[in-house]
Amino acid sequence: MSSQPQNRYKADLRDLHFVLFEQFRLGEVLGKAPYDAWGEEEVKLTLGEVHRFATEVTGPLNGVGDREGCRLDNGVVVTPKGFKEAWQRLYESGFKSLGVSPEFGGQGAPRALSVLAGELAAGSNVAFDMYPGLTVGAAELIEAFGTHEQRDKYCGKMFGGQWAGTMCLTEPQAGSDVGAATSFARKNADGTYSITGTKLFISGGDQDITDNIIHMVLARTEGAPKGTKGLSLFIVPKRRILADGSAGASNDVKTVSLEHKMGIKGSSTVLLQFGDDGQCIGELCGGEELQGIRQMFRMMNYARIGVGLQGLGIASAAYLSALEYARDRQQGSSAKEWKNPDAPRVAIIEHANVRRMLLWMKAQVEGIRALIVKSAIHLDQAAVLAGKDDKTALYHQGQVELLTPLIKAYASDMAFQVSEAAIQVMGGVGYTQDYPVEQHCRDAKIFSIYEGTNGIQALDLVARKLGQAGGANTQRFLGDLAKFVAEHGSHPVLGPSVQNLGKAQEALGGSVMQFLQWAQVGEIDRVQLQANRFLTMMSELTVGWLLCDAAVIAVDKQKALPEGDPDRLFYEGKKQAAIFFASQVVPGIVGAAKMIATGDRSAIDIPTAAFATV
Amino acid sequence: MSSQPQNRYKADLRDLHFVLFEQFRLGEVLGKAPYDAWGEEEVKLTLGEVHRFATEVTGPLNGVGDREGCRLDNGVVVTPKGFKEAWQRLYESGFKSLGVSPEFGGQGAPRALSVLAGELAAGSNVAFDMYPGLTVGAAELIEAFGTHEQRDKYCGKMFGGQWAGTMCLTEPQAGSDVGAATSFARKNADGTYSITGTKLFISGGDQDITDNIIHMVLARTEGAPKGTKGLSLFIVPKRRILADGSAGASNDVKTVSLEHKMGIKGSSTVLLQFGDDGQCIGELCGGEELQGIRQMFRMMNYARIGVGLQGLGIASAAYLSALEYARDRQQGSSAKEWKNPDAPRVAIIEHANVRRMLLWMKAQVEGIRALIVKSAIHLDQAAVLAGKDDKTALYHQGQVELLTPLIKAYASDMAFQVSEAAIQVMGGVGYTQDYPVEQHCRDAKIFSIYEGTNGIQALDLVARKLGQAGGANTQRFLGDLAKFVAEHGSHPVLGPSVQNLGKAQEALGGSVMQFLQWAQVGEIDRVQLQANRFLTMMSELTVGWLLCDAAVIAVDKQKALPEGDPDRLFYEGKKQAAIFFASQVVPGIVGAAKMIATGDRSAIDIPTAAFATV
Repeated sequence: MSSQPQNRYKADLRDLHFVLFEQFRLGEVLGKAPYDAWGEEEVKLTLGEVHRFATEVTGPLNGVGDREGCRLDNGVVVTPKGFKEAWQRLYESGFKSLGVSPEFGGQGAPRALSVLAGELAAGSNVAFDMYPGLTVGAAELIEAFGTHEQRDKYCGKMFGGQWAGTMCLTEPQAGSDVGAATSFARKNADGTYSITGTKLFISGGDQDITDNIIHMVLARTEGAPKGTKGLSLFIVPKRRILADGSAGASNDVKTVSLEHKMGIKGSSTVLLQFGDDGQCIGELCGGEELQGIRQMFRMMNYARIGVGLQGLGIASAAYLSALEYARDRQQGSSAKEWKNPDAPRVAIIEHANVRRMLLWMKAQVEGIRALIVKSAIHLDQAAVLAGKDDKTALYHQGQVELLTPLIKAYASDMAFQVSEAAIQVMGGVGYTQDYPVEQHCRDAKIFSIYEGTNGIQALDLVARKLGQAGGANTQRFLGDLAKFVAEHGSHPVLGPSVQNLGKAQEALGGSVMQFLQWAQVGEIDRVQLQANRFLTMMSELTVGWLLCDAAVIAVDKQKALPEGDPDRLFYEGKKQAAIFFASQVVPGIVGAAKMIATGDRSAIDIPTAAFATV
Repeated sequence: MSSQPQNRYKADLRDLHFVLFEQFRLGEVLGKAPYDAWGEEEVKLTLGEVHRFATEVTGPLNGVGDREGCRLDNGVVVTPKGFKEAWQRLYESGFKSLGVSPEFGGQGAPRALSVLAGELAAGSNVAFDMYPGLTVGAAELIEAFGTHEQRDKYCGKMFGGQWAGTMCLTEPQAGSDVGAATSFARKNADGTYSITGTKLFISGGDQDITDNIIHMVLARTEGAPKGTKGLSLFIVPKRRILADGSAGASNDVKTVSLEHKMGIKGSSTVLLQFGDDGQCIGELCGGEELQGIRQMFRMMNYARIGVGLQGLGIASAAYLSALEYARDRQQGSSAKEWKNPDAPRVAIIEHANVRRMLLWMKAQVEGIRALIVKSAIHLDQAAVLAGKDDKTALYHQGQVELLTPLIKAYASDMAFQVSEAAIQVMGGVGYTQDYPVEQHCRDAKIFSIYEGTNGIQALDLVARKLGQAGGANTQRFLGDLAKFVAEHGSHPVLGPSVQNLGKAQEALGGSVMQFLQWAQVGEIDRVQLQANRFLTMMSELTVGWLLCDAAVIAVDKQKALPEGDPDRLFYEGKKQAAIFFASQVVPGIVGAAKMIATGDRSAIDIPTAAFATV
């Protein structure tokens, strides 16, 4: 039923433009190196084209991919019908190399544009988008750390879509605990390595789309120390590379099995066996051993923001589907006429409870979009200022570090919750496969798990990011927020909302102090018990801030517009979303801080055997 | 992979016994009419047998049913392999007639036992359990309202499992708005009615399990008023009943299509067309027109508690699956040794964040179990006291009325969230179909939608139940809670937890007053905006109360036990779950009340066209 109009992928481009140009003033970096080729016109045109591609090419394959899924046929993964053609059209379009450097045929676009193109790609078909998404990630690893020869050999073909790429970290006994990996790389006389080992949950680990697949494999070399420090990163093609640069014979990488998953069924997830016959040859990325975890971690922020983008894309798609349905579906009469059986039926969006759910969804979607674009603009600013004002560039880079776990975890949790709300708004039909929202909900569940579970994101935030650079990143973040609160606490429309931010910030600061105090007395488990709650609080505070920031701009702009201008409604929506979130979500942060302050350790105190008698 | 041991259905019978006999003292009603045939021994024996049936018969079919689903073959629904045999074994066992009156071959068991048998049935295979569950519901309708002849004709065969039953309310244009139904019943000369109309989302609307299906159909008679008051209830068999009581020729009920759903795939959900050829004959249930909505509503509490049971069953199964996995799966080392790569691996249940998720799940599952058994015991008390102490019986009945929307909505929301947490605990493997938790999550999503969406439950609570009997039910409820708080506020172990209940109760009372005030000035939409939040608050408060109540008992019992007695651990678990919930969930009620008090109406104020520009 994917041809039904209600299943068409939709995005609110007006909001994307607002966030880029009105809220985060992308114009300030456009025209400056390295973004000298980009102007506002080009950015908007590109977004429009990406949107059209998402609507016409990848979007219509979303339901197909889910229903067909992948299958393993004689050791080869067969992807859903249409995926191969979509891949070809994608690489003809050039949209997947927006952020790639011109050296490899890319367009060197600002990251703020790349992330919103990423939202559209993921939102229209997240399962399909995994293949090119991971390919870019793998190619960027080689670009950043590979030798000159490796860059020449792989990057062009990978960025150009001839070959695909994967990330091979997880092993059956090494999931969150990456350092437990036992895949082994024995150095050969010619400088190559013979790879053996098993890698689990490899997205795009096999497919029938590209001629070759370049696996980035973490493995241990002889004599390497235990744990993550003993890992090295290898480039392991599915088919060996011939002297002329083309793909030759098999490199002894076997696809053993295919996972059957709750969602992202169009994305193949496989178990790979490397070197079962002793014939798997890899090259050491960059030529230096024991750099694997450092290299992987350097790319980790991008990968994690990428998951946040998946969350944003799915949440936005689910919201707009539910919104369209709620505007169309007639059911019940106005609450004011509930005793009158002759009252006319109204669209369900007229019911208070449905409006509340929709406004909550809107606020989350637009707030998370602002959060992600904020981090992207920080990166763009850092790129523009590099070598000119390194101190400010460092500030920008620091904010990205701090915001990354928030983006990954909060956007993924909210994608699932917004999709759930979309089902709820639509009722029984939302539960059927006639509409896309139940698929969105299933697809979204993996986001909180891969690229570091949200539990790991929370530990990254409290144990690493909060104190990074001697706490300077956190202080600058809180300082920026405090400045906003001070400037707008008496705003005629948004004053009370902004004051709620101030109270929440104070509460959050209290929790940080509490964590420090526990850490000083060695009560690390108290911190760990509350890390996820803290991440949610800090995310809600940031989203609330950015919604209010957008609303302050919107209120000003609205005033300047004549009656009847359609943008007046758009700005009104921005205003109400901010008021809603500041009143109905942000105050919960204060309560959450109180729950942290209890220091409750019942979850530690309960004996493991006391959880149940079975 | 359903044969893997980790997929076996599990239930913590020790907790079921605790709730029945230690917390709610079922013993006090056993042995008294109408439960004179039942003693503690019989109850425990029966639960054990039902548990065995769930583990051995329905449980192993849960994954099969999901993967096979139902299909429509030439107008006939084909159910998953094994369902028909399971049905036969179920009716041989007699477990489905536990609560049925002896008049129809049932065992007249206390409802407290029936609900826990229901938990096991739903938890092991909720899709399968829909067929007998709806059959019992339909038969109870005829038992309660049918003529003597109708009871003779249908009830025995339906309670005995020869025939199945369905509830046909929803139509394409009449979902939540039941009164918009247009199915029509024209009276024939012989007193029967000719039925025409379309009914949507009919669970068990067709199947290949039973010889006949008895549809309970809401339809309008000639000249009937608009809205729900114009509805009458008809008994419409799939096959006409012959003079000898057996099933004869087709009754012109066509299965037009089958829904493809996110979950409960083993349960058929169909669109039925009644009387397309003018040959569909129904009988008026009870012989009186325009009684349909009253009759349906009388059974509604049971149906809604039934959905709560589905939620409890799924939540418990998901929790115990995740718990088992967390005890087995080795990953990472103890937090105390996080810098030591040589530290031994530990089970993931040793990690603080995993323990926190598991304890939250445990508290929800056991608290919701107590909530449902509390309502069942109220019913059992009402049955025992009927005709002896009608005033007290009325109190008990009133508590059931009040608790029903909480049970339906909160248990269904939590089933989804607990299943999500189970996936999160298990990580990547939880997202695969190798384990049952992703199916639990998909199955559970429908619970918040059918039998009245949770939005409707919330309106039922605030607009109807809170003020029912002049507010007496609510006052008695709050009085019972206040008594508990007064009695145990200085408890040596649970005092601080109980005090949190007191603060939350005060906050909840404030929200009730706020609602009254808004209602008095006609600001109904403010109440509607906050109804769902209020339902969650009241549910959390009730669950927190019942967990503390259980913990007070547990602390006493634990003291009396010698070291090494395994029940000491069980009681310790009850204690820690209560402390956790009172410290980490209940205080949120105070914050939620503050958010209600803001009176925010942004979701009303936002123009419908301002939600998005697409």
